[in-house]
Amino acid sequence: MDKLIITVTVDSTMSYPGNPLMPAIEDLDAIAAEYVRSVSAGASIVHHHGIHYLEPEMQADGRRLSKIDFDGWRRLTEAIRAKCDPIVQFGIASARLEEKIELMELGPDMMSYAFNVHDEYFQPDPAYPANEMYALHPRDELETFCRAAQEHGVKPEIECFYTGAYWNLEFIRRQGLLDDPVWATMFLGWPGGAWTPPTADALLFMATHIPANVNWNLSVMNPQEQWKLHAMAIGLGGHVRVGWEDNPYLPNGELARSNAELVEVAVRLAESMGREVASPDEARAITAVGTVPATM
Amino acid sequence: MDKLIITVTVDSTMSYPGNPLMPAIEDLDAIAAEYVRSVSAGASIVHHHGIHYLEPEMQADGRRLSKIDFDGWRRLTEAIRAKCDPIVQFGIASARLEEKIELMELGPDMMSYAFNVHDEYFQPDPAYPANEMYALHPRDELETFCRAAQEHGVKPEIECFYTGAYWNLEFIRRQGLLDDPVWATMFLGWPGGAWTPPTADALLFMATHIPANVNWNLSVMNPQEQWKLHAMAIGLGGHVRVGWEDNPYLPNGELARSNAELVEVAVRLAESMGREVASPDEARAITAVGTVPATM
Amino acid sequence: MDKLIITVTVDSTMSYPGNPLMPAIEDLDAIAAEYVRSVSAGASIVHHHGIHYLEPEMQADGRRLSKIDFDGWRRLTEAIRAKCDPIVQFGIASARLEEKIELMELGPDMMSYAFNVHDEYFQPDPAYPANEMYALHPRDELETFCRAAQEHGVKPEIECFYTGAYWNLEFIRRQGLLDDPVWATMFLGWPGGAWTPPTADALLFMATHIPANVNWNLSVMNPQEQWKLHAMAIGLGGHVRVGWEDNPYLPNGELARSNAELVEVAVRLAESMGREVASPDEARAITAVGTVPATM
Amino acid sequence: MDKLIITVTVDSTMSYPGNPLMPAIEDLDAIAAEYVRSVSAGASIVHHHGIHYLEPEMQADGRRLSKIDFDGWRRLTEAIRAKCDPIVQFGIASARLEEKIELMELGPDMMSYAFNVHDEYFQPDPAYPANEMYALHPRDELETFCRAAQEHGVKPEIECFYTGAYWNLEFIRRQGLLDDPVWATMFLGWPGGAWTPPTADALLFMATHIPANVNWNLSVMNPQEQWKLHAMAIGLGGHVRVGWEDNPYLPNGELARSNAELVEVAVRLAESMGREVASPDEARAITAVGTVPATM
Repeated sequence: MDKLIITVTVDSTMSYPGNPLMPAIEDLDAIAAEYVRSVSAGASIVHHHGIHYLEPEMQADGRRLSKIDFDGWRRLTEAIRAKCDPIVQFGIASARLEEKIELMELGPDMMSYAFNVHDEYFQPDPAYPANEMYALHPRDELETFCRAAQEHGVKPEIECFYTGAYWNLEFIRRQGLLDDPVWATMFLGWPGGAWTPPTADALLFMATHIPANVNWNLSVMNPQEQWKLHAMAIGLGGHVRVGWEDNPYLPNGELARSNAELVEVAVRLAESMGREVASPDEARAITAVGTVPATM
Repeated sequence: MDKLIITVTVDSTMSYPGNPLMPAIEDLDAIAAEYVRSVSAGASIVHHHGIHYLEPEMQADGRRLSKIDFDGWRRLTEAIRAKCDPIVQFGIASARLEEKIELMELGPDMMSYAFNVHDEYFQPDPAYPANEMYALHPRDELETFCRAAQEHGVKPEIECFYTGAYWNLEFIRRQGLLDDPVWATMFLGWPGGAWTPPTADALLFMATHIPANVNWNLSVMNPQEQWKLHAMAIGLGGHVRVGWEDNPYLPNGELARSNAELVEVAVRLAESMGREVASPDEARAITAVGTVPATM
Repeated sequence: MDKLIITVTVDSTMSYPGNPLMPAIEDLDAIAAEYVRSVSAGASIVHHHGIHYLEPEMQADGRRLSKIDFDGWRRLTEAIRAKCDPIVQFGIASARLEEKIELMELGPDMMSYAFNVHDEYFQPDPAYPANEMYALHPRDELETFCRAAQEHGVKPEIECFYTGAYWNLEFIRRQGLLDDPVWATMFLGWPGGAWTPPTADALLFMATHIPANVNWNLSVMNPQEQWKLHAMAIGLGGHVRVGWEDNPYLPNGELARSNAELVEVAVRLAESMGREVASPDEARAITAVGTVPATM
Repeated sequence: MDKLIITVTVDSTMSYPGNPLMPAIEDLDAIAAEYVRSVSAGASIVHHHGIHYLEPEMQADGRRLSKIDFDGWRRLTEAIRAKCDPIVQFGIASARLEEKIELMELGPDMMSYAFNVHDEYFQPDPAYPANEMYALHPRDELETFCRAAQEHGVKPEIECFYTGAYWNLEFIRRQGLLDDPVWATMFLGWPGGAWTPPTADALLFMATHIPANVNWNLSVMNPQEQWKLHAMAIGLGGHVRVGWEDNPYLPNGELARSNAELVEVAVRLAESMGREVASPDEARAITAVGTVPATM
């Protein structure tokens, strides 16, 4: 079984808008410090959203998109890399495809893309209005993204909310646009129309059906179930994602003062099961990140 | 265990465009005859698509929509009802919401609505180009549809391609917009980004997680696996959907000359497992179709 | 997927002592006729118990054993083979090991042996006292049996009531005493301390864990669930065993007037799923019965 | 979810005869100290085997039995209770039933009994000969044991190696011989003919089928898989058993210098999943141990 790769994701503005510890997303120093602390604690992948602004106007298809602040993304990436050397993974589902491709010029190691619909309904606290998010990702869009990623030497992170993403993964891979081993993240318990239940049998179902030559990672948005499912995933050979975006609470229900505390829990779980934690370099070897793409 | 409700769906223009037996959709006499024969053979729900035309132009959101021929729908429904008395279920995913609601005036017993994304990729025969279909169904659209259905005394058929539909089902039900028992259909093996594998464990997973007070039905688009999974579903207490739309082939691989032949296979499976087949009236009782909605 | 091998087992004296149609076990003509009818109907393996008598006295270990009437076994086998050519499988769990080995001289194709404890509690009808049966089968006994079977060119039927039998199967196979492909039967729903529940998930669990190079067969002792689980097993690629011993009732709850009627149900199920039924010769090829053992 | 009850079992003479740290079983001071340390570390049930001697001669049924040293059992129990107050659970499968009942006079809180066959094959180290153990436990024996336990106010620990034990559990409970909530332990990965695979799906299968009103506990004999399955069991609401008998190795593969170290791992796992660890008094409340039995 490979060493455990821990991904950390700090930005909770969409998922837990009431988190009092979350810095403003323009406060790059504070955010970079969170990532650096998390890498020190054991994370080897940092998933960040740079600086972006949700546009007030709606698109013709009903989507609200985010505007990318390229300079913000560059500065956050540089601030992290100045202090440590994790795999840098760019997220931001609501950006335009062309801006995502432009972001590749900033040299991330990985970039996230949902291989199924985005259909989220975030309302962790009834005192706040629900955040809803919808986006279709047709196969020609997935192709364009993966082709650009291959050209830029950026490894896609395939986001899988249900088995439909596996079908798309194989469809795109058959066209030579994904290099093995593929890196995929399962999302359990994310409320909305893309929901898969945060249960042991759902995890087993998703893990059993994962396509060959895929390293899988787990994100759970459910503070009551996350740590239990992470424990199970670690035992099954999966990798785990933690951080304020997914679940800002420690196992005892207290708010984590730093994302590093959440990373430490994952490390303790791994140690208690006899699984070692991967360093950034070991994570690079496992994911084949940073290797020259086959097409170049 | 309730008696088995068999749904028949004849229109294979999207899914198996190469089916040489499929009449033109304007040939209402031939299509009505297929439905009537199927009801005689044991079907108690007829799922039809009336007459509709895929528009050549694309929408701003990338969708291609279908134009409803209201008179065609009326005439097909009347032609069927003139000969037998099944539950009439209107399908047609690609219609505009407002046209769907207008269709309710024609008095169907049930009407289908996907509670998750439409993302299909049909290419049963490589000699034909793939038919792709995409549509998002946001929750406010589901609400509007279900409210209209409740007002018209039409029972929704909740289409579930993965567990996200269950989340939406519960979300809409909490608002009082779905009357118990809910009627839901699982779709396994439908290729595309909404795919759930056509396997025994996937069926068990979907059936285990089905919300309470829901009667479930199974559609499988995979000629090799359909009859096997239908047998399993019948044993588990589910209902089944057959017909040219889902799979025009008999278990021995031959093209069914009539949809009634496919219904007959389902009947034989049920009999061989000791499960009786519901008549249209029994199906009405099981599904609570035709009862006055709670809000009136 | 291989063609379906149907095993028939007629003797219901232990399991359904109230079956009014069961001939006396000395009535070899009537019993042979049941087997021959069943082979005509589609069975390719006949599992029979010859003539045997449960001894009144108890053994030191608490077991009650059966005395074998060798001439009765020979005559029943010959009466069947005079009319048709199925694979002949000898059963009889309660016989002494040495008598079982002696039975191999009669030239059966297969012989059954439980690879786990016998612990049954039969009481299908509260009007009859329960029939209890216990026997341990230590590994040295399994070795002795399999070595003798190999020497006599008799293929063991490995009876598996739970996964412990799989462990023993691999243990014995590692010693070269089982020739591939192994023939194993799962027993679901058999009441007593060796019980595995007659449910879809239990069948999936047992089938998922079956060792490699094993053809599996299913016996279900539960009239309500048998046909449902048989349908599922046929879809999963397993084989099925029917007959008065396991379940004398047709799917509609009526007592089968002949075992052949039960075979016919299995044939109809297979046909309705597109799986062909194996002839005796095809069953020989699938099971590698009748081939010269490796050690000779 | 209840707090986690940790059982510790120290005696590795049968399962890991090569364990260099295991005191002689007559060395009651050393063994009691191991138990006391383990309770301090978080265990609330101590499962001990007192002093016993495997008899050289074999029984008529092929079993080798153990002779009980009653004074040794009393002194070990007293030595533990002098220092702490755990639930004391007596084990020793190979004792005669009458001696087990006599042991109840010593006032244990719980006493173990296998509700299925004993069929173990221990050979953790090929340098040592395999230890094999066989015993049938017929239902009349289970009844006698449970009736005596009820009369003595001793709670049975129902040992379950496969689902057959569940059938027996319900059979005995229907006779009023088991008080709710029942305490049952699942055994995964124990080599031999009672084996259930030490896998996530086997654990889920066993946990899903556990009868109602049963608290379940997990024992895994497989050093590579134990901690992973324990993590999963803790997340599912089960309890866990650790100690030299089941697995003397820490997650990192090192031999645990004390059983307390193994308890500490279970405690860390629980804390990392947000599950609290039960004190002995809390364990008494959860298991209803020490309450007056219904029949008195």
